[in-house]
Amino acid sequence: MDASVFPEYATGMEKTAEKSRGGRGPVNIEEMAAAIRAGNRTALARGITLIESTRPDHQEQAQALLAVLLEKTGKAVRIGLSGAPGVGKSTFTEALGSYLTGQGLKIAVLAIDPSSARTGGSILGDKTRMEELARDPNAFIRPSPSSGTLGGVARRTREAMLLCEAAGFDVVLIETVGVGQSETAVADMVDMFVLLLSPGGGDELQGIKRGIMELADLVVVNKADGDLLPAAKRAAIEYKTALHLMRPKSQHWLPEVRLASALKGEGLAEIWDTVCRYEEIMKETGTLEAQRADQALAWMWNELREGMMETLRTHQGTKSRLKALEGEVAAGKTTPTAAARSLLALLLRD
Amino acid sequence: MDASVFPEYATGMEKTAEKSRGGRGPVNIEEMAAAIRAGNRTALARGITLIESTRPDHQEQAQALLAVLLEKTGKAVRIGLSGAPGVGKSTFTEALGSYLTGQGLKIAVLAIDPSSARTGGSILGDKTRMEELARDPNAFIRPSPSSGTLGGVARRTREAMLLCEAAGFDVVLIETVGVGQSETAVADMVDMFVLLLSPGGGDELQGIKRGIMELADLVVVNKADGDLLPAAKRAAIEYKTALHLMRPKSQHWLPEVRLASALKGEGLAEIWDTVCRYEEIMKETGTLEAQRADQALAWMWNELREGMMETLRTHQGTKSRLKALEGEVAAGKTTPTAAARSLLALLLRD
Repeated sequence: MDASVFPEYATGMEKTAEKSRGGRGPVNIEEMAAAIRAGNRTALARGITLIESTRPDHQEQAQALLAVLLEKTGKAVRIGLSGAPGVGKSTFTEALGSYLTGQGLKIAVLAIDPSSARTGGSILGDKTRMEELARDPNAFIRPSPSSGTLGGVARRTREAMLLCEAAGFDVVLIETVGVGQSETAVADMVDMFVLLLSPGGGDELQGIKRGIMELADLVVVNKADGDLLPAAKRAAIEYKTALHLMRPKSQHWLPEVRLASALKGEGLAEIWDTVCRYEEIMKETGTLEAQRADQALAWMWNELREGMMETLRTHQGTKSRLKALEGEVAAGKTTPTAAARSLLALLLRD
Repeated sequence: MDASVFPEYATGMEKTAEKSRGGRGPVNIEEMAAAIRAGNRTALARGITLIESTRPDHQEQAQALLAVLLEKTGKAVRIGLSGAPGVGKSTFTEALGSYLTGQGLKIAVLAIDPSSARTGGSILGDKTRMEELARDPNAFIRPSPSSGTLGGVARRTREAMLLCEAAGFDVVLIETVGVGQSETAVADMVDMFVLLLSPGGGDELQGIKRGIMELADLVVVNKADGDLLPAAKRAAIEYKTALHLMRPKSQHWLPEVRLASALKGEGLAEIWDTVCRYEEIMKETGTLEAQRADQALAWMWNELREGMMETLRTHQGTKSRLKALEGEVAAGKTTPTAAARSLLALLLRD
């Protein structure tokens, strides 16, 4: 491996070192791909930085990189993890991650946090979080891309997930806060969606978005320790009842509820058993393959929609016409349909 | 007026006569526009049929017709009416419509019912409904387009509304069932959104879609007669409280609650007074103009999105490539992003 291409070896919070490097220097896609496949974390971090870049030449290179690595992807268990702020997602991820590396597995943690674009903060920006896991050589933690629309962030996270798979990670865990649209985006890119709740019971559901419960393949009631254990048990029963009232996502799996204490490291083995059992059933029934194919197709259509709208806003031939027509439509001088038709005629090939 | 262009004079359920005609014969847009402006109902019905047609030449003609008539639009009070099945929408519409024609006003009733595409039925398919109003020469009733996506149905209803305005109707009432996405589509094309509820109180809200209450500028509790009057009064108080807890749509208007008995024709004058007061406040504060401009712009963007997706599916240059790429993406042989890029390159002008 050429040291001039991969000059640093970063552990833990990979992005900081990567960012300070500024992405300079030429990129040899074949070499980068080989290094990623060999499990080189710096190469992986650089690959993800390439994916996150908005520069058109970087985007080209990122797609070339993915094209080379694509056949090496798809081996990991893809898990989504969501929950309201304060439920203990970071602590739980750290506990589960350490449990898995203890079992000899390699885990990559990616975060989606579209709110960070607004607040300037990030889900993982606080570096004191996941300190232990960040030092673990069999774990890779990557914070959310720090800007962009949810669609853009989701695309980059999906592609980062593929790179992690090519790098040989056994588990990719994608973490998000369950308060916006991001949890749907996450559910659309993973095999299994895990909802983390605290022992608040039904009251707590008020704090998260309606409908998120329907996405869950597994509900974990965290903080099931000490004084909160009885409340956690009651909440688990309540959630179980609620889940049974909903239409299951798959005919092969009824969502389950587990207790955990991330703080004490309890319940992790049971949770991992459940994940493995789920993945196995989904594989055996062909559901996993079908679900991944559906997800990829939906993603393609989404990219098409976004690409078209982006072109419309930035294309030289339509930009000024769009502005003029928006004025005419707002003033009632042109119908929206006629305006749309004239823009489409400018934009689309015959 | 040339009798060969407008051979029939239809009243009431305008579409049946129109349909049996099959839209044959050349269309002279200028003549049709003049006839619509003169208030000729057959011309209006034919114009709407043109708008509803999926034939490209008809669509061209429909846009030409709208372009000619556009400056004559915008004078009507645009009302949306929604409510769960069984709440008495048709009876209420008939009662309010008859009240308005009795006041010397002309009212057009359009329906959006995307479910009719699936069930084969239509909101107004049962011709025994609105029998009286259908015979009223100052009323015009048009059932929902009988097929298409919600987006398509909504576009056609918006454009039919414009034709009704050009034909001199003082009120356009757009009716929909409040169980799907259609009520949002309706709220996006009218000045005032009226939610019709029966005296069931909070329980009844279970039957309609969550969030529909937030759309309402006016809630009407129907069936406020006989035994149900006390329950209707209680429900009205309950709805008033609920409305006050929500963030109002406009700083100039707090949603109101009125009682009505469509059966006995009671409460209609108060409801109409409320509508007029609303329209006046919205006009005086400039809110109406701004809202209509926003609606038209949102509609244009929606047309753009739909037009692009439609082109992608039907365009000769992309159709077969799309099929091939969908296969590759589903099989994990191409990334969704790469597939989308290659399709966009085929589709969009440089």
